[in-house]
Amino acid sequence: MSFFDLVVGKPLATSEERAEQIGPIAGIPVFGLDALSSAAYGPEAALTLLIPLGLAGIAHIVPISFAIILLLAIVYFSYCQTIDAYPHGGGSYTVASENLGEKAGLLAASALMIDYVLNAAVGISAGVGSLVSAFPRLLPHTLALCLGILLILTLINMRGIKDTVTAFLVPTYLFIGTLLFVIIVGAFRAVAAGGHPVPLIAPPHVPASISLVTLWLLLKVFASGCTAMTGVEAVSNGVNAFRPPAQKNAKRTLTIIIVLLMTFLAGIALLCRAYSIAATDPNSPGYQSVLSQLVSSVMGRGWFYYVTIASILAVLALSANTSYADFPRLTRAVALRNYLPHVFNIRGRRLLYSYGIYALVGFTAFLLIIFGGVTDRLIPLFAIGAFLAFTLSQAGMVMHWKRQGGKGTRHRMIINGIGATATGITLLVVLVAKFTQGAWITAIIVPGLMITMSAVKRHYDGVARDVVIDRPMRVDNLNGPLVIVPMDRWTRISEKGLRFAMKLSDQVQAVHVDAEEGWEEIEHNWQRNVAAPLNQAGRQVPALIFLNSPYRFVLMPLVEYIEKVEKEQPDRQIAVLIPELIVKHWWQTPLHNQRSQLLKLLLLMRGNQRIIVINIPWYL
Amino acid sequence: MSFFDLVVGKPLATSEERAEQIGPIAGIPVFGLDALSSAAYGPEAALTLLIPLGLAGIAHIVPISFAIILLLAIVYFSYCQTIDAYPHGGGSYTVASENLGEKAGLLAASALMIDYVLNAAVGISAGVGSLVSAFPRLLPHTLALCLGILLILTLINMRGIKDTVTAFLVPTYLFIGTLLFVIIVGAFRAVAAGGHPVPLIAPPHVPASISLVTLWLLLKVFASGCTAMTGVEAVSNGVNAFRPPAQKNAKRTLTIIIVLLMTFLAGIALLCRAYSIAATDPNSPGYQSVLSQLVSSVMGRGWFYYVTIASILAVLALSANTSYADFPRLTRAVALRNYLPHVFNIRGRRLLYSYGIYALVGFTAFLLIIFGGVTDRLIPLFAIGAFLAFTLSQAGMVMHWKRQGGKGTRHRMIINGIGATATGITLLVVLVAKFTQGAWITAIIVPGLMITMSAVKRHYDGVARDVVIDRPMRVDNLNGPLVIVPMDRWTRISEKGLRFAMKLSDQVQAVHVDAEEGWEEIEHNWQRNVAAPLNQAGRQVPALIFLNSPYRFVLMPLVEYIEKVEKEQPDRQIAVLIPELIVKHWWQTPLHNQRSQLLKLLLLMRGNQRIIVINIPWYL
Repeated sequence: MSFFDLVVGKPLATSEERAEQIGPIAGIPVFGLDALSSAAYGPEAALTLLIPLGLAGIAHIVPISFAIILLLAIVYFSYCQTIDAYPHGGGSYTVASENLGEKAGLLAASALMIDYVLNAAVGISAGVGSLVSAFPRLLPHTLALCLGILLILTLINMRGIKDTVTAFLVPTYLFIGTLLFVIIVGAFRAVAAGGHPVPLIAPPHVPASISLVTLWLLLKVFASGCTAMTGVEAVSNGVNAFRPPAQKNAKRTLTIIIVLLMTFLAGIALLCRAYSIAATDPNSPGYQSVLSQLVSSVMGRGWFYYVTIASILAVLALSANTSYADFPRLTRAVALRNYLPHVFNIRGRRLLYSYGIYALVGFTAFLLIIFGGVTDRLIPLFAIGAFLAFTLSQAGMVMHWKRQGGKGTRHRMIINGIGATATGITLLVVLVAKFTQGAWITAIIVPGLMITMSAVKRHYDGVARDVVIDRPMRVDNLNGPLVIVPMDRWTRISEKGLRFAMKLSDQVQAVHVDAEEGWEEIEHNWQRNVAAPLNQAGRQVPALIFLNSPYRFVLMPLVEYIEKVEKEQPDRQIAVLIPELIVKHWWQTPLHNQRSQLLKLLLLMRGNQRIIVINIPWYL
Repeated sequence: MSFFDLVVGKPLATSEERAEQIGPIAGIPVFGLDALSSAAYGPEAALTLLIPLGLAGIAHIVPISFAIILLLAIVYFSYCQTIDAYPHGGGSYTVASENLGEKAGLLAASALMIDYVLNAAVGISAGVGSLVSAFPRLLPHTLALCLGILLILTLINMRGIKDTVTAFLVPTYLFIGTLLFVIIVGAFRAVAAGGHPVPLIAPPHVPASISLVTLWLLLKVFASGCTAMTGVEAVSNGVNAFRPPAQKNAKRTLTIIIVLLMTFLAGIALLCRAYSIAATDPNSPGYQSVLSQLVSSVMGRGWFYYVTIASILAVLALSANTSYADFPRLTRAVALRNYLPHVFNIRGRRLLYSYGIYALVGFTAFLLIIFGGVTDRLIPLFAIGAFLAFTLSQAGMVMHWKRQGGKGTRHRMIINGIGATATGITLLVVLVAKFTQGAWITAIIVPGLMITMSAVKRHYDGVARDVVIDRPMRVDNLNGPLVIVPMDRWTRISEKGLRFAMKLSDQVQAVHVDAEEGWEEIEHNWQRNVAAPLNQAGRQVPALIFLNSPYRFVLMPLVEYIEKVEKEQPDRQIAVLIPELIVKHWWQTPLHNQRSQLLKLLLLMRGNQRIIVINIPWYL
């Protein structure tokens, strides 16, 4: 087993696909981490905006959270229907392009691609951010830590779905278990204390209201909280990854993810109100995250606190994994329709669309590097892509049912219609609330991506038109080509070239460009070493042609001669045989002139379909 | 006339060589600028070391200068004999390697190559340095000015010798004329005033002695003054550049250069003593160069002063030109003996060894950039290369005469022997005096260069052994090759490939790697589109071979199959035909898989002499 196999795993045969498929338990670490980790930053983002309202603000978090949970329920039912309708995976791109047209599909695809890259970058840097705030000595290494986690995630994901599950199962369920436990214990205590429990460790004091509540502020809080909903799309896009019955398993997975997320959001909101926990200013020295306050209020600061906080950190960093699962599936779906390079269709050694992973990692690393590993400023861009995709997907589903007709159509159209309307309104709210904070960047990049993808499609369509052939092979004029061999001194290399030329065709010309050496010696050697033995063997002797070069150019006289011959011989192809020295070590390259490469390039650049260059390698 | 022709000149035919040759008048700007410009910095360097001695120091400059002049005379006579003996150019490299062995030759070549690069860098930065001290506002642009002058020098030199002469004739003779005039007028006034002339503008006051003179100090002064002798080698290396009688013209040129330089050195030394001119501290604000003091003492500060100073500046910057004339000749001589890449032998469009110029410019630009255009610190390294080359060359000449024998041998051996001894002693003095100031760097680089050159030679010798052939061409076994065509879907590209394969040989195999697509469709298409029409035409149908690929690899099964076939067919060459899509725009490259390139690379890397890859270009 080679080192490479050890790192990324042995190749998997196409027939092993079934063994790589997963069930709901394994589906949660693969597809659910983006959604579930939202519990850690969605409420925090909403509460941070409520800081100016002080104690009064905490009261508002409960209705806002329940509005988000309601929206989540609507989206959940819509996506269950999508999974039913698209057994091979119904991402927003597929649904939108099949039901609303290619433009809508490209819009959804652009939005989602941006979103997945942002998710990976923001997830990793949020995890590293929490780690660094716990251990400030790591601060100078923020970027290195981010790229390190990116590398580890990549290596694990390159090993295929099964190995990814194995790696992420423990942190995922530890996170789910501890957070659920905190919520249950906290709720029990709150009920037991009649709604006013005494925290084991008191959270920071919350001052009275500083400013008055406005509708605009509440809308912004809602929009921030909605970042919790990214990642819901993942499962419906990845139905193919589940073992049969795939649709049932996918829906089960989605159900578990959504129920857990709802429980988290509701529990955190209610407990924050019960324990009077507000967000703290992340830029002030006394900063403490909402979940940290919550856990220590309910459980104190024993070992359980540290286990819980560590699992939250881990899941934040791992939330990028949803991007690894879905981005390559999305780019593959787009590439299948010729809007992205075809490499995205190639399944790598571990049955993954490897180039999708490379692209995701490349863009994520790019974002992490230019932002130095601190991607706070990208968060405003975040939810837009998701809600744009939601809206297009649900609207597409309405059209889908309408077109399909049959029993239950009306019912299904209503469910997806409510989904489309709700997510559409939310999209507007998020766009308006976040436009000046950076959402305008998305508004620039999305059309750019759409234009690029359309250009790619046009190119592929052009190539397809060019090469398509609807007739059998032409069998006329299969004469051997005219073979031209540039010839310098008489060496083993020239012998090999000339012999190969004579094997290919009985029409061979040796061409010597006479720059500074004497042609007499070449002529003499030719007669003695080539013409004489060939005459003796009764074979045709190739023509030896001298090209005069008063300005000592070697390549241009050759190219001009070859083109002249090509014009004179309309019914023969021209093959130019170029001996090429292959050196053992790279540093020997400058020791030999690169004329053969240059000649090949010059001939290729002429774009003549009838001239073919044959390199005769000579290994030193 | 294209823009390119306008900038570097039209190409010159090999037959125009005679017209490019020069006489003594033109020889001075080409070969003499390095030596003559020494008058501007040699005495300055010596006097700077004498500053601590005050007035007493000025007295010492005369004997030291005459010692240098004596050495110059010895070297002059030696080199005249070298020119006689080597009518095609007798640089130190040629003389040393022919008479003292290859090792000695390489030592001389390394030393000289370093020296020429240093000369170019130091010359340009000295010129710019003087300019900047006159116009301090230019200081931030020092590097840009240096690189600009390097570029101008390069463009002028790339046009060939004749154009170089045209460009540099005026500044060269202006410099010679004005400086001679200053010396004559000054000497006349000094004699008229009985040895104590009154300066028109008094030079800065020279304080009395601060420290006592030591032998060590005088040796260091001598070593510094010897930098004036670099560039003397140039003419003997470039005898070829002169028009017939080449040796006579070369000797005339050398004589003029040496006599002028001697006059300058003697005149400057005597006038400095007569007018009590000492060097000033270059780091103090009152700095004024020795020549500036001298000219203003003798001539005042009228227009003549400014013309003289300007021509000195110009000649300093142009002194780099000697490197342009000689470095390419040196690298060519070394490359002729296989110790440097053969590109150094190629004569470019203007009959120059262009690659030598590229290398010189590259290294000079590198030095200028890493030192930011201030190369003062390189000056200590300077004279070592020159004196090492002088010594080896003179010693080689002694051996040359000894070997040759005949009339006048003894006389000639004595002249070159004195030269070798004198320059050898000077080399020791310079080495010891400058070792800690940076001469040790030369002591590291020289062996490094020698090792590299020996490795180059070994490589070329190996290649020559590999490819040499002393027998006529083998004419047995000229069977057509077995042609293997990797085949995907049935397209125009496959048709072109298959047709070309059938033109080359009657042994053709089409190979399909069955990764994920169905082989049935390929088989069906083959029967209908290839087999049927060929059968109808009564031609042989190529074999269609399926390679199974459970792990979806495309290239490895192909490579393995090709190697298997190669082993099975010991008496046929294998030609692999790879269709290659050529895109119109570079950005389209990632839209097509690069498998054909990769397959070619994989096959080349196997290093099998019998497998030949043929790319069939398809232009989109």
